[in-house]
Amino acid sequence: MPRPVITLLTDFGTRDHYVAAMKGVILGICPEAQIVDISHEIASYSIAEGAYTLSQAWRHFPAGTIHIGVVDPGVGSKRRPVVIEAGGHLFVGPDNGLFTFALAAAGKWRARHLRNVRYFHRPVSRTFHGRDIFAPVAAHLAAGVDPQELGSLVRTLTKFPSALPQKSGKSRCSGTVISIDKFGNVVTNITLSDVPWIGKSPFELRVAGHIVRDFRPHYSAKTTAPFLVQGSGGWLEISLAKGHASNQLRIHPGDPVEIQKN
Amino acid sequence: MPRPVITLLTDFGTRDHYVAAMKGVILGICPEAQIVDISHEIASYSIAEGAYTLSQAWRHFPAGTIHIGVVDPGVGSKRRPVVIEAGGHLFVGPDNGLFTFALAAAGKWRARHLRNVRYFHRPVSRTFHGRDIFAPVAAHLAAGVDPQELGSLVRTLTKFPSALPQKSGKSRCSGTVISIDKFGNVVTNITLSDVPWIGKSPFELRVAGHIVRDFRPHYSAKTTAPFLVQGSGGWLEISLAKGHASNQLRIHPGDPVEIQKN
Amino acid sequence: MPRPVITLLTDFGTRDHYVAAMKGVILGICPEAQIVDISHEIASYSIAEGAYTLSQAWRHFPAGTIHIGVVDPGVGSKRRPVVIEAGGHLFVGPDNGLFTFALAAAGKWRARHLRNVRYFHRPVSRTFHGRDIFAPVAAHLAAGVDPQELGSLVRTLTKFPSALPQKSGKSRCSGTVISIDKFGNVVTNITLSDVPWIGKSPFELRVAGHIVRDFRPHYSAKTTAPFLVQGSGGWLEISLAKGHASNQLRIHPGDPVEIQKN
Repeated sequence: MPRPVITLLTDFGTRDHYVAAMKGVILGICPEAQIVDISHEIASYSIAEGAYTLSQAWRHFPAGTIHIGVVDPGVGSKRRPVVIEAGGHLFVGPDNGLFTFALAAAGKWRARHLRNVRYFHRPVSRTFHGRDIFAPVAAHLAAGVDPQELGSLVRTLTKFPSALPQKSGKSRCSGTVISIDKFGNVVTNITLSDVPWIGKSPFELRVAGHIVRDFRPHYSAKTTAPFLVQGSGGWLEISLAKGHASNQLRIHPGDPVEIQKN
Repeated sequence: MPRPVITLLTDFGTRDHYVAAMKGVILGICPEAQIVDISHEIASYSIAEGAYTLSQAWRHFPAGTIHIGVVDPGVGSKRRPVVIEAGGHLFVGPDNGLFTFALAAAGKWRARHLRNVRYFHRPVSRTFHGRDIFAPVAAHLAAGVDPQELGSLVRTLTKFPSALPQKSGKSRCSGTVISIDKFGNVVTNITLSDVPWIGKSPFELRVAGHIVRDFRPHYSAKTTAPFLVQGSGGWLEISLAKGHASNQLRIHPGDPVEIQKN
Repeated sequence: MPRPVITLLTDFGTRDHYVAAMKGVILGICPEAQIVDISHEIASYSIAEGAYTLSQAWRHFPAGTIHIGVVDPGVGSKRRPVVIEAGGHLFVGPDNGLFTFALAAAGKWRARHLRNVRYFHRPVSRTFHGRDIFAPVAAHLAAGVDPQELGSLVRTLTKFPSALPQKSGKSRCSGTVISIDKFGNVVTNITLSDVPWIGKSPFELRVAGHIVRDFRPHYSAKTTAPFLVQGSGGWLEISLAKGHASNQLRIHPGDPVEIQKN
């Protein structure tokens, strides 16, 4: 039988002891768990960045994987801890919108409010539910506990205000920058299905005072001008060959993006 | 039989090959080891920060876990390499005070000077005992070698000059800042048991020119003033809701902290 | 049977979802794989730094380990994806010179052009061969697929322009700085075998306007002057006791280094 996989996504960083404490708790409950870090470098308290990063990673893991997400500015306050079954995977974390993008892709979901303290690490602190609630609950799930033992069903989940692109007729689309990756590629919330004429007709993309007119199949190009590329997650990205588009063009998350067919 | 767990805490960073070399050596000796990183971002040569971080993490791991600690400014000089049994766990590293806080919590200990070169990676370099002594010794322990084969007993260990808080009567306590976490929370060396009237009586905490009078149960608060909270490790912390207390208030490790009951 | 080990070296960083996506793909194909990170903090597009770091790490892993290397500025263009058998290990990545230093140490090699799409993650994107080609191929190898099923033999591999030191007679050697480690130690491409008189005769090393005359057995020294030490990888390094030699002496990768016997 394959070892159960548990992934971790947090804004804890890797300098402090927080992530290790969660892993220690998991291994104490489910020694055969295979723990994989998705990222611990989500900007502190940024539910949007956490939701985006998780949405890009979760579907590459095998069915049955348990994903712990902890970007939790409201820890200790009234927001609910939940477990969500969707797309053949399990998601464990606070009900604050962190799973919005993953669930939009996964389709149907079933969620439960984590209330059975039998599966918590006790005493539960007011400041570290990652260690005291989410890690032990995920480990018990990995060890075979049925989700229905963890709490009663929840009918609605908090949704992150989604920023879907707006189309105006068949030749215009307005979106925003949602992420900058380590290489400086500027990820927009616009996909090729929103602008199917890209790559076939001339176009103009406007962002932060720049105009981009070039669409390329990959990042390797012999031009010094910025170009558009379809990133591996499906979204359109603005890129500079061997450069850092975000820094050099001064484009930031939240900047508006306009694309128009010419 | 559960897989043996080996944790790693170093000041090596994760950019260079150092940590990977240690993991390679471990897996060559004990392929079934489950290796978990505690932190590799301890400030270079900071035994204090390493000792604090290890003390917060080790006790969450299952009994029998082997913890390798390598913050070792004296590598290659006369400081002794040791293995320490305490609290049902094993600690492997230099005898330079790195395990002081963990051992204070674990209680009774038994230590040995690592001298049996049969369990070393040879030739032993003068600059990288993490790879050549500590990783292979930990792996052999994980594979079942008895600690008494590794060297003879040691009667005293180097202690890190501990900075316990000082109480003056029943209404005052003086301590210091021992760590800043990734969120900017300012961790002091004072616990609620040192100042049991906190949360029940009015008080004033003075640090770096600021006065804090507010005690809160968790980090989620609707105030812009700094407040005191009991961190998940038990120590009192100075925090700003959704802010970075250390940067915004200019509080640094080593700063004195005074608490007085009003 | 021991679990197959797969290592990862990339310039992806650990903030984004890229590394996690690769690990998810691996575990979907070979659930028993033991995945170890070598480094994800190679400077973006720096094949030289990646080649150096991999060369220092790979040989510490057990025979049969599969090393994935992805520093790939040419992803999606014509450079070939390859698998290389050498020194009892397997290397999977782009044929762009990234494996040059490892292969120089490993000796004889046999390489194949990865062309059998049956072992790819489909559809193969133009921007993320780490996830779509290298991770799944490595996982299939770990699961027992024979390299000869992956593609036909390749006769030559792209070599990174190696920067071997130049000797002038028996008393001079010219080299360069190849890396700075996290502690600021300045790693040169000169080994003790190039200058066997070091440590026995007086010498002068010149770098970035500084003269170093002191050779020490390890990093722990009571001097404030820079000194030379043999690093754990065998190369000579310029170091400052408890200081950061690169920052304080303003020495950078690529700087020329001259050593002369006096």
